[in-house]
Amino acid sequence: MALAAIETRSSTPSNETAHDRRLAEVLKHAARIFWEKGYEGASMRDLSRATGMSLAGLYYYFESKEDLLYLIQKHTFTTIMEQVRERLAESSDPEVRVRIFIGNHLEYFLANKEAMKVLTHEDERLKNGRGAEIRAIKREYYRICLELMEDLRRVKGLQFSGRLAVLSLFGMINWIYTWHNPRVDAGAKVLARQMGDLFLSGVLHNGTSRRKAAKTKGRTAVTRV
Amino acid sequence: MALAAIETRSSTPSNETAHDRRLAEVLKHAARIFWEKGYEGASMRDLSRATGMSLAGLYYYFESKEDLLYLIQKHTFTTIMEQVRERLAESSDPEVRVRIFIGNHLEYFLANKEAMKVLTHEDERLKNGRGAEIRAIKREYYRICLELMEDLRRVKGLQFSGRLAVLSLFGMINWIYTWHNPRVDAGAKVLARQMGDLFLSGVLHNGTSRRKAAKTKGRTAVTRV
Repeated sequence: MALAAIETRSSTPSNETAHDRRLAEVLKHAARIFWEKGYEGASMRDLSRATGMSLAGLYYYFESKEDLLYLIQKHTFTTIMEQVRERLAESSDPEVRVRIFIGNHLEYFLANKEAMKVLTHEDERLKNGRGAEIRAIKREYYRICLELMEDLRRVKGLQFSGRLAVLSLFGMINWIYTWHNPRVDAGAKVLARQMGDLFLSGVLHNGTSRRKAAKTKGRTAVTRV
Repeated sequence: MALAAIETRSSTPSNETAHDRRLAEVLKHAARIFWEKGYEGASMRDLSRATGMSLAGLYYYFESKEDLLYLIQKHTFTTIMEQVRERLAESSDPEVRVRIFIGNHLEYFLANKEAMKVLTHEDERLKNGRGAEIRAIKREYYRICLELMEDLRRVKGLQFSGRLAVLSLFGMINWIYTWHNPRVDAGAKVLARQMGDLFLSGVLHNGTSRRKAAKTKGRTAVTRV
């Protein structure tokens, strides 16, 4: 399979960086075309034009549009996950760690809005093994965030649904691709601070008041998930 | 134009209800097909099968897939907006009104998840006059929510960015179509309460603490939008 050729070649350390850089570049162009024309509407010819690869070269390396979609999804989630893991190692404070997660996510996705839309809209396109592989990476990313919520809950002695908190946060930070306008809206750093403030205030105060309410009424007001 | 026929016919009061009900039903089936096959992937034949209309009948009333997409978008936003306006009239308390908005949105969209995905994914598909018409309705819906935020800010004496609050809230409540699983997750009422708690705690406490910080430091900490 043609993709194997790429992977084998990239295993030579001296070639790796240049090759990886080139692959990332091709995927970024491809994501832009999928974003502009939709996955169905984009042709291999459009992709060849945008990436600057010959049609023959494109088919040699990627075989199909689905190969490109798979690689965009895999590359995006792997990169954002490696980055966030590295940054999370810098702090053990649960609030700071939630802020690191938000900041990393917004920074990556505002720089790669095309990929973000493609990930959201072509979410269920990949089938079988590849679909399962991408879903597993996404579940891992979700779990990183869930653990952050669980740490926060434990350290602060709160009670709230981790699942709902994670999915509400994902909504806030993912929806941004539908509205962010660089001419009007702040950049990733400021937005991360503002959304971090909003989300953390919500979780911390919500949890506290509910805990107090539960104690007063002698029952648990909020279920854990 | 065929659509005009529908609209003219529905203006006869005695026919209106039955006709409207039938149109809503056709649009719901069409949204399901767009959700399952994607807009590009769905054929008029698929739509005819799903709606139970003959292919000739479908073309007579709708002319094209684009007609259906336009009507799905228009019907959805018009319905949810009428509903929320009616419900908002029931209370003048700004917190309660934000909760009414969240509840109405979640209730409608959990009952019409297909439409929600179609609205999100085919957001930019409609061009020219129709695209502009739908964007105007969406802006109106956004403005209703922005006014709720501004009321809350004024009555509670807070400072926060209304735009960021509205778009964060839209993220939380719209993203739900990507994750809501009726076998695991609560229904609209419970989710609306939980998301309302999280969001309102965030806005209220975030605003308060920032206002205090601003007073202490003698400056305004948060910009208004």
